[in-house]
Amino acid sequence: MIRTLFFDDEAVIILDQSQLPDKVEYLRCETVEEVAQAIKKLNVRGAPLIGVTAAFGLAMAVTNYQGERAGIHDYFRQTRTTLASTRPTAVNLFWALERMEKVFTQEFVRQANREQIGERLKQEAIKMYEEDIAINRAIGQYGQILLAEDSQVMTICNAGALATCGYGTALGVIRAAADQGKIKKVWACETRPVLQGARLTVWELMQDKIPVTLISDNMAAYVMQLGQVNTVIAGADRIAANGDTANKIGTYALAVLAAYHQIPFYIAAPLSTLDLKSASGSDIPVEQRPPEEIREFRGMYFTVPEVEVFNPAFDITPHHLITGVITEKGIFKPPYDIAFKGLRSGE
Amino acid sequence: MIRTLFFDDEAVIILDQSQLPDKVEYLRCETVEEVAQAIKKLNVRGAPLIGVTAAFGLAMAVTNYQGERAGIHDYFRQTRTTLASTRPTAVNLFWALERMEKVFTQEFVRQANREQIGERLKQEAIKMYEEDIAINRAIGQYGQILLAEDSQVMTICNAGALATCGYGTALGVIRAAADQGKIKKVWACETRPVLQGARLTVWELMQDKIPVTLISDNMAAYVMQLGQVNTVIAGADRIAANGDTANKIGTYALAVLAAYHQIPFYIAAPLSTLDLKSASGSDIPVEQRPPEEIREFRGMYFTVPEVEVFNPAFDITPHHLITGVITEKGIFKPPYDIAFKGLRSGE
Repeated sequence: MIRTLFFDDEAVIILDQSQLPDKVEYLRCETVEEVAQAIKKLNVRGAPLIGVTAAFGLAMAVTNYQGERAGIHDYFRQTRTTLASTRPTAVNLFWALERMEKVFTQEFVRQANREQIGERLKQEAIKMYEEDIAINRAIGQYGQILLAEDSQVMTICNAGALATCGYGTALGVIRAAADQGKIKKVWACETRPVLQGARLTVWELMQDKIPVTLISDNMAAYVMQLGQVNTVIAGADRIAANGDTANKIGTYALAVLAAYHQIPFYIAAPLSTLDLKSASGSDIPVEQRPPEEIREFRGMYFTVPEVEVFNPAFDITPHHLITGVITEKGIFKPPYDIAFKGLRSGE
Repeated sequence: MIRTLFFDDEAVIILDQSQLPDKVEYLRCETVEEVAQAIKKLNVRGAPLIGVTAAFGLAMAVTNYQGERAGIHDYFRQTRTTLASTRPTAVNLFWALERMEKVFTQEFVRQANREQIGERLKQEAIKMYEEDIAINRAIGQYGQILLAEDSQVMTICNAGALATCGYGTALGVIRAAADQGKIKKVWACETRPVLQGARLTVWELMQDKIPVTLISDNMAAYVMQLGQVNTVIAGADRIAANGDTANKIGTYALAVLAAYHQIPFYIAAPLSTLDLKSASGSDIPVEQRPPEEIREFRGMYFTVPEVEVFNPAFDITPHHLITGVITEKGIFKPPYDIAFKGLRSGE
């Protein structure tokens, strides 16, 4: 399994996903600004992985801190703010930073020194990394029960090993089902504009020899009409208390199309994606990305360079279009406001 | 208005749409094989324009014919077969070839010589070209009545001046409405894989100073959910007797999404697109295009080059999702089987 993220002494090493599948290259980030840039520019992406990457960045920053112990608290908060301001939609980012802050505060209060605090944060970040893989395996085990023999599963974007610390959420379910011999075909939507489906999901599945067919996003409805999709599974960037779910732009379209064709539509995500502070989808901020992502790809223009563009990175799928939410604690079914009651994010 | 097609003595000159919007270049076709290749390779595209281009090719071939008069009938049929086998879905191609054959037969029977037959076919092709523009203006006039002030119209692919001999079908409606000051915004879906929306519709509308915003195809549902689409208008490649309509892949998705959001969905097309010999959509052949169209753009790969791809060029929108069909004879409403009764294609 490819490693998406690791520590190398005083640096955070990030698999540069913007180069895939052409090149497998790693970025060496030695400052928190470099980690923040890598998140902003999509060198590293995927809600669960963004969260753990930020945790790695925070641990590295504190480990490398050279100032007075008295200043470490302010420094921690600044660093946290830098990382928190990278991307607004995926709640796992804020969840991970909060978890790291709890550890920091605990250590700070008990008078640990700089080195001890740094070491403790590093341990916590690595623990989050390992937990994420275990969570994804649990998601896979719960989710694969939903898939019958000869399943044709449609997915969007990359909710795979590359979006997480390993194994994946939506692709975790597909992997677990493939282990049982239940996957006939995965339909990968290419996922414009950044093409995570074409670049990442295809690459991941081909490496695992899971049969995958690539389509452009506007073909999904036609493939459903042809009766060649049994189940749609997508990841999530944030799930509100009522089940409304933010995920990669195009997910909402798939949910409407799946409902029209009477195909079950599932979200697969860790509970760290659940944001009970957002009552519904309207509380979730949707990130707007640069227009160049639509206009060109690696410098090759698709259109008139001056054209006005709308480029939301996410959309919100209303809860009533979601058949179930597959998590590490099992499959939640509507009504979600009741199903999620009493849970806390990440628990 | 840009000329998409014309005669230059013994050659057919075709605007090379595969180069747009980067370059405005014309292809000089001196043989019918060159015209057929230009149609196959999408140098020239758009159902109405394909039909007239084939007519131009046929007229040129007969004009340039150097053999015995006795062989001209066989030569005509061969040429016709070459042009008919370029693309299977757009029925305008077959309609145009049939119309040309009628003229040929008439002239042949009345003992016209080679030059006379060639000249007569050229006249007929030019007449079709001019008629097409007039038809589109009529479509525009009927269609614009459907649009209110401050309309935000979504369209897919390019059903514009570039898809026709001028003015356009879906974009003809938009142009006519823009003349009345009724267009607030056009949402152009980029239309993967060949990007006719991003490359052609954007270019055309920007040249006419009609406000256009480009989105990737998977954003359409979200824009509708935001309440920013009043009407969807698409072109057509073939309309069956019951109203089922073949058009660019992605049209069916827009129709389902429009119905879900209670947005009217119109088809704009000349009656030459009507195929009463196809009882329903299941009688319409859907062209499969080369996988490279999905995998790469102008040599730049989006994915693993070996990935399996599904690349249908069209999909079929069932009649019950179509609010109306805007033609040069007015707007047809359901039930289409009754509305279309007694019509003949192109009448």
